[in-house]
Amino acid sequence: MSRSVPLELIAAIHSHDKFLCVSHVNADGDAYGSVLGMIHLLRNIGLQATPVMPEPVSPDFAFLPGAEEVLLPEAVDVAEYDFIICLDMSSPDRMGALHQAAEQAQTPLLVIDHHVTNTHFGVVNWVEPDAAATCQMLTRLADELFAPIDLNAAMCLLTGIVTDTLCFRTSNTTPEVMEAATRLQRKGASLPWIVQKTLNRLPFRILRLWGNVLPGVQLRERVVWAAVTQEQLRAADCEDDDPRLNSVLAAVEEADMSAIFTEKRDETGRPIVECSFRAKPGFNVGDVAFRLGGGGHAPASGCTLPGSLAEVVDRVVALLIQERRRQAIVFEGEVST
Amino acid sequence: MSRSVPLELIAAIHSHDKFLCVSHVNADGDAYGSVLGMIHLLRNIGLQATPVMPEPVSPDFAFLPGAEEVLLPEAVDVAEYDFIICLDMSSPDRMGALHQAAEQAQTPLLVIDHHVTNTHFGVVNWVEPDAAATCQMLTRLADELFAPIDLNAAMCLLTGIVTDTLCFRTSNTTPEVMEAATRLQRKGASLPWIVQKTLNRLPFRILRLWGNVLPGVQLRERVVWAAVTQEQLRAADCEDDDPRLNSVLAAVEEADMSAIFTEKRDETGRPIVECSFRAKPGFNVGDVAFRLGGGGHAPASGCTLPGSLAEVVDRVVALLIQERRRQAIVFEGEVST
Repeated sequence: MSRSVPLELIAAIHSHDKFLCVSHVNADGDAYGSVLGMIHLLRNIGLQATPVMPEPVSPDFAFLPGAEEVLLPEAVDVAEYDFIICLDMSSPDRMGALHQAAEQAQTPLLVIDHHVTNTHFGVVNWVEPDAAATCQMLTRLADELFAPIDLNAAMCLLTGIVTDTLCFRTSNTTPEVMEAATRLQRKGASLPWIVQKTLNRLPFRILRLWGNVLPGVQLRERVVWAAVTQEQLRAADCEDDDPRLNSVLAAVEEADMSAIFTEKRDETGRPIVECSFRAKPGFNVGDVAFRLGGGGHAPASGCTLPGSLAEVVDRVVALLIQERRRQAIVFEGEVST
Repeated sequence: MSRSVPLELIAAIHSHDKFLCVSHVNADGDAYGSVLGMIHLLRNIGLQATPVMPEPVSPDFAFLPGAEEVLLPEAVDVAEYDFIICLDMSSPDRMGALHQAAEQAQTPLLVIDHHVTNTHFGVVNWVEPDAAATCQMLTRLADELFAPIDLNAAMCLLTGIVTDTLCFRTSNTTPEVMEAATRLQRKGASLPWIVQKTLNRLPFRILRLWGNVLPGVQLRERVVWAAVTQEQLRAADCEDDDPRLNSVLAAVEEADMSAIFTEKRDETGRPIVECSFRAKPGFNVGDVAFRLGGGGHAPASGCTLPGSLAEVVDRVVALLIQERRRQAIVFEGEVST
């Protein structure tokens, strides 16, 4: 299952000095964890490494060692760097403003990612869709680079693994994932502390949002879904929807697939809907999202569609129900309770 | 941290043939997992082992290999066995009707448990309060007994570890816990499947109940609470309240204490309210419950009070707020975010 790290990646890193590490907009724990983890690993073998993110660091991840060093794209002169290492990013547009800067400066990109939808946009691309987190891949890369995993690196990498697997609950939590996590614990990273800092924190406004949204949740043919309006978000004092609602719906016993639809507007003010999907083991929502112009994996995916909330919900729920039916036939043996 | 298995335990097992394995009333995943896991381990070294539980097996754990063999106390002749192995049980009364039968037959007890409150009621007592689950202890015992861990044993033991640690989220999830779990995965037990069968199961009616209850949730002075009416329970098709709602409220970032109040009636038809409390580390809801005639521990407690829902909520919330204030002063150093 674990493919080897491309030799070109090792060679590119070992033969150069200055690296910029970046991840995607709307960053999650694996994005921050892999960028900061990589910074610490590179420094541990004497290289210069700078973290940059397309948006200011979320207060939720300010606890990560190195978070205070993260720069915004406008503070960086891309031309100064030998390589940009793109972590946990499926396509170059996901790095925001840095994308244009990198193209202008013609700084080469090294890609390290676990998204199956990765477009292989680097000069070297190490993409492992079987990995549960980019941070999991970096624990292997550390060995190949002969980079010691210090406490700082361990905390960052374990955070990415914990958040991307919802603390070892996702279907891609293989023994290799558990071994990587244990190793990072042994390097001093506290699993309970990271869990407390990331997954076991429910802001009161999220509870309010659930109170607004859950009365409207629907279940049909083993597909469960909820629509989140701007009014509901405002009433709960939430700026954006929250991935925890996805996890709640994804746990519904009577459903194989779940979806959250969030009402938004694009830059021009036109109505759009952000769709987020989850599937139980044996089912796949990756293809549905891909067909709708989005991306992701079999168990979790998403897309953004133009249109009103009601229109998009109707259309996409019909598609999910159809797709679930098709998959239930294909995987019939596995669908039993 | 990991103490050794008592030699007397190994000797007692290796020098006898017939074992009855039992755990506690109101059994959880570690109770079922340790009883059934022990059965498989003993059989793997050629011994006779029979599982017995004080109550019929919960449908939630019927998936465990061997669950179909579990006997009720009345179906067992205790005198036929060399030893009763008491697993995950802190005191002998917890094994229900089997307790009297064992005393009458004078069958000796072997105790294997991880509860700090264990009363050491066996002829041999192996109690490890540092262990996160009795099932974790059994992975070590397997080695000492030279008992192969087959797929059946691995599934049972991993289930106990997963449920007692809420999938590696509790503060006692040490690297040793992770290593035990990884080992059981390597023996073929599927972690995602077990998670799916145990923790990731949210009945749709519970989601409906949350939708009914959460709009009324309140937060004042770091105490968060919700009141559950009979009407809300009926509208959601729920017969009783659900402990998951407690866990949700207990995770609220802005609160140190949480409470759920459920409207009920006693046998004579008079209104009563069931109160369930939780406290964050550093706070104590055990005393409050005790003063109100209930019981429990510092982090979780409860009581039942006469009166209407509104009356009881008003009275008890005032008490909780007062108590939290008092404790916040006492524990001031620990109250910081």
